[in-house]
Amino acid sequence: MSRTTALTPPTSIECWFEFGSNYSYLSVMRIEDEAARRGVPICWKPFLLGPIFRSFGWNTSPFVLQQAKGDYVWKDMARQCRKYNLPWQQPSAFPRSALLPLRVALLGADQPWMGAYCRRIMSINFAEDRDIDAPEVVTVVLLQLGLPAQQILDEAQSESNKLKLRQQTESAQAQGIFGAPTFFVRGEMFWGDDRLDDALACAVSGPG
Amino acid sequence: MSRTTALTPPTSIECWFEFGSNYSYLSVMRIEDEAARRGVPICWKPFLLGPIFRSFGWNTSPFVLQQAKGDYVWKDMARQCRKYNLPWQQPSAFPRSALLPLRVALLGADQPWMGAYCRRIMSINFAEDRDIDAPEVVTVVLLQLGLPAQQILDEAQSESNKLKLRQQTESAQAQGIFGAPTFFVRGEMFWGDDRLDDALACAVSGPG
Repeated sequence: MSRTTALTPPTSIECWFEFGSNYSYLSVMRIEDEAARRGVPICWKPFLLGPIFRSFGWNTSPFVLQQAKGDYVWKDMARQCRKYNLPWQQPSAFPRSALLPLRVALLGADQPWMGAYCRRIMSINFAEDRDIDAPEVVTVVLLQLGLPAQQILDEAQSESNKLKLRQQTESAQAQGIFGAPTFFVRGEMFWGDDRLDDALACAVSGPG
Repeated sequence: MSRTTALTPPTSIECWFEFGSNYSYLSVMRIEDEAARRGVPICWKPFLLGPIFRSFGWNTSPFVLQQAKGDYVWKDMARQCRKYNLPWQQPSAFPRSALLPLRVALLGADQPWMGAYCRRIMSINFAEDRDIDAPEVVTVVLLQLGLPAQQILDEAQSESNKLKLRQQTESAQAQGIFGAPTFFVRGEMFWGDDRLDDALACAVSGPG
């Protein structure tokens, strides 16, 4: 099919996520395949969930603050991972700090290695139950992807990149994001892994 | 088909719900058709969400307490109702008190009119945006179902039935219920309208 002037680019899905967020794990592991199947480009939006929670007066995840919900969430996660055929190990530390891997994700957002990088970090947290916020962990992941790890880490920890992650987090809050994952399609917000399919369907079906 | 000794009854789904809960609206409107299609009996479990929320230190719904989440929820509800082909009008009062209709629901839980009664009360709240916690409203609903309204209302407001609803609410809390709707299948808990299909699939597929 020939194309004349393409007035509208293919509608993309914004994926706002946190490496410490267990429901983000489900979406980050699934989204690249699911989006590719439908021809939907992904716009990766790593951000920090901690400042958002603190703005609500919470000093940690609601899954920790509300014990009944927390107890349920781990059973739900095990079941969802079985459903999606994803490996799962309940993290012994939750929520895990993810500052460094998120700074790297911000650098990688437009890079071809982003999806694989995110899945690897997520797997370390939620399938291998290991800490992710350490230079040696992130270094190994980057090296395994054939990337210049030290250069990327240096750039990730530059003042300008640190500021950029804070700004991205402020932008999340300004757009009404209150949890992760959150998706935007044409400005319409979809919260939670449970809405990933609806968000992708919206990207495919067009506005209205 | 002939049956010899039926050792195990068909696995049922417990549906714990509140008439004031918007996500309960989605499930209550859908569950009878969805369960019937799969041959799954429904065990209706009306309860009061207010005491559960108060046990967390909340004086109202989290959708009111957390403005960002509340703003999102109404957009999500409109979208979900379009998806399920359900009428929708954002209630001008939220969450609506539902004490009397819940007391009646407790009486009707094993009655053949239960599903229709619940859908009618839910529709008044979430499709017609009218109060539901008034004897005249419940009376009309019962009469339209061809039921002895006054007799049912008298029994619903008896001390023993009031106590029974408090006990059912305590039972909900003791089982770890922290929101509505919540489903149980063979003791396994599923939270939210988003898990209704999984809960029904679990009821059909058997244990393990």
